[in-house]
Amino acid sequence: MERCALGLIGWGTVGGGVVEILQRDRQLFVDRCGLDIFVKTIVTRTPSRTRSQTAGDAVVTDQIDVLLRDKEIRTVIHLVGGTTAARDLCVACLKAGKHVVTANKALLAEFGDELFALAAERKVTIAFEAAVAGGIPIIAALRDGLVANRIEAIYGILNGTCNYILSRMTEDGKGYTEALKEAQELGYAEADPTLDVNGTDTAHKLAILARIAFHGRIPVSEIRCEGIDKLTAQDIASAKNLGARIKLLAVAKPGPNGLELRVAPTLIPNDHPLAHVSKNYNGIYVLGSAAGPTLLVGQGAGALPTASAVLADVVDICTGSYQNTAARFHFFTSANSVPLLPEADEVTCSYARFAVPDRPGILAGITSELNKKGVSVLNMHQGTPNIQGQALIEICTHAVRSKDFFEAINTIDRLNITVRPTVTLRRL
Amino acid sequence: MERCALGLIGWGTVGGGVVEILQRDRQLFVDRCGLDIFVKTIVTRTPSRTRSQTAGDAVVTDQIDVLLRDKEIRTVIHLVGGTTAARDLCVACLKAGKHVVTANKALLAEFGDELFALAAERKVTIAFEAAVAGGIPIIAALRDGLVANRIEAIYGILNGTCNYILSRMTEDGKGYTEALKEAQELGYAEADPTLDVNGTDTAHKLAILARIAFHGRIPVSEIRCEGIDKLTAQDIASAKNLGARIKLLAVAKPGPNGLELRVAPTLIPNDHPLAHVSKNYNGIYVLGSAAGPTLLVGQGAGALPTASAVLADVVDICTGSYQNTAARFHFFTSANSVPLLPEADEVTCSYARFAVPDRPGILAGITSELNKKGVSVLNMHQGTPNIQGQALIEICTHAVRSKDFFEAINTIDRLNITVRPTVTLRRL
Repeated sequence: MERCALGLIGWGTVGGGVVEILQRDRQLFVDRCGLDIFVKTIVTRTPSRTRSQTAGDAVVTDQIDVLLRDKEIRTVIHLVGGTTAARDLCVACLKAGKHVVTANKALLAEFGDELFALAAERKVTIAFEAAVAGGIPIIAALRDGLVANRIEAIYGILNGTCNYILSRMTEDGKGYTEALKEAQELGYAEADPTLDVNGTDTAHKLAILARIAFHGRIPVSEIRCEGIDKLTAQDIASAKNLGARIKLLAVAKPGPNGLELRVAPTLIPNDHPLAHVSKNYNGIYVLGSAAGPTLLVGQGAGALPTASAVLADVVDICTGSYQNTAARFHFFTSANSVPLLPEADEVTCSYARFAVPDRPGILAGITSELNKKGVSVLNMHQGTPNIQGQALIEICTHAVRSKDFFEAINTIDRLNITVRPTVTLRRL
Repeated sequence: MERCALGLIGWGTVGGGVVEILQRDRQLFVDRCGLDIFVKTIVTRTPSRTRSQTAGDAVVTDQIDVLLRDKEIRTVIHLVGGTTAARDLCVACLKAGKHVVTANKALLAEFGDELFALAAERKVTIAFEAAVAGGIPIIAALRDGLVANRIEAIYGILNGTCNYILSRMTEDGKGYTEALKEAQELGYAEADPTLDVNGTDTAHKLAILARIAFHGRIPVSEIRCEGIDKLTAQDIASAKNLGARIKLLAVAKPGPNGLELRVAPTLIPNDHPLAHVSKNYNGIYVLGSAAGPTLLVGQGAGALPTASAVLADVVDICTGSYQNTAARFHFFTSANSVPLLPEADEVTCSYARFAVPDRPGILAGITSELNKKGVSVLNMHQGTPNIQGQALIEICTHAVRSKDFFEAINTIDRLNITVRPTVTLRRL
């Protein structure tokens, strides 16, 4: 049996989960892998705060040096949010020769290149299974399980807050504001949910997945990113009319002209397995050249699911497996740059909702303009006109070049056959 | 770059997939992990058979000794079916000091204890990601990704043949025989599908998953196993009436009185994610003490998906990761015996279909007997009587002890209020 003393920086929700699992199931790791894993030192800004759990035998301190100077601590669990103090603390650990396990996706997406280079220089590693999709072992699946595959596409529902809000809007007809409030009450959304609902958090996770899948630098600022905060009850209802559900979808899809990378509310047809990933769950659909499609679904956040991923990394580091694969796979140190596909050249299915007056020739006018640009209609729904004599025409298209699609929409809106600017969304 | 010469025994569907991937994507493994992986020797009973692919630079022979004596070959991909020659060949490879990667689930389920003991003695390993659920990295997920979890339940759709047949029966109203024939035409079912449709193949896979999840010997002969070959169109329709779909489900669920292990056609409610695992897909739902529920879905069979899993194992062995984790985790060598729960003591939801005459008091008679045994009804459907004046009453129950459920059913059938023996099934 091998003693594995851990340092823990950050004793919040996930840190509490790590402490809980190791207090309850320390013997499990001994039985399974001969490792006696325990938290030796907890570094927190608030050592004296009253908590619902005890630290057990761990020293609790606000002095990072206690941890950094301790030679017995070879691995540090880094659970500090943001990218300022979090970055400094991560750098300090790496410089002190500690392996780092982190759940901080923003840190890796924005400073991963620098941090992994430092880790390589100091002959330690950074493990981050917990940074994407919480308890779902997606990083290991992409790195190891699918190693024999060229990745042909990744479609991910990567933010539980957004997925919960959208599920409530879809299944119970709630409005965005009401669904957000409910999510906050249940602890699925932060008091300030901005980075979740505007898509930033999903973009960070997508950058990390793409870094691994496509072996190159992904500039996170260049990921096109739309959130769910502008979606309306009408959008949700329209998706239903067309046999689909709206999800905040992260897309990474390589092609001959570059990598398509985006985060956007997207109609998912009901017969696609991602359509059934609901409530606060995360789901990742990976298309591999050999394995075909693989779908992984699970809890993308929360104390215990995220701690489960953190401790899987800890075990991989304590057995030495992780150093071996991570170093060998260069999977966060490749300096390749991956060319991104400009939005105009993306080829995807799309959705449009035209608000039109109820008079003859309108539908013909719309379909004629679509046809001129080579936009082929996959399915369509037209409702009965309302009391003002206005009707909604909703269409989904076959895959079409974005430039052509948006040019057709712009022409239609200029032709005076729509009464409001046409609403568009992506469709999987 | 490290040369990794492989031996391949068996050049059938999956062997062909391995050869195809390595011919097409040999550079991928060099780029990703610095390994130059290639098949050096192919052993087949039919070296002279005309094939759709060439062996490239590999030697093709029917002499196993060519492979066994080659010191450069440290890892053998073993793709021989059955348990007789397959066992001898596996033993020969282990005795020659070769690591073995196999997709043969029957071999491991029946002779795993003996083979893993031999491997440990010879300081080599047996890797078998491909043996369960093809391209889905479920073995790695249970062993590594969920290492911090006590496994609270595994529910698996593990046989693509059965799932395809049931999907066709459900979605297109086909009968069992017709759906089987279609599956055979599409290559989803063997000419002799017995071991698939009678549940044996699923039981083998369940035994392997349970071996890993519960760290002990699983006597495969003691797994209760029912197939899909006796299901009728009425069963499928009844499930629909009660908001469910029938899947061949493998269940492993530990409890204070023993491990519940069975393979049986099971009603899965439509709101459960496994209900949407259809066509020839496999799906595994794992409930972990920390991660909560995780669902993995993908291609459970076929040349390339299975070869994808085989090559993931090959990489893990060539990097040395696998030897490290497999040896450390003792995950197929533990001699613990896992006590199984007798069927009578299982506590599950169940389904019953009563064929009754259309006369007063029948429903009261049935519900009264159920109530006497503590069987609580979850939902119910009664159709209009047919022209003979007979009606079907279908129920799903809340979780109930099997003994009580079956005693209630037997009593009802003896009371002369049913016109045919009552049909029962499990419900998730």
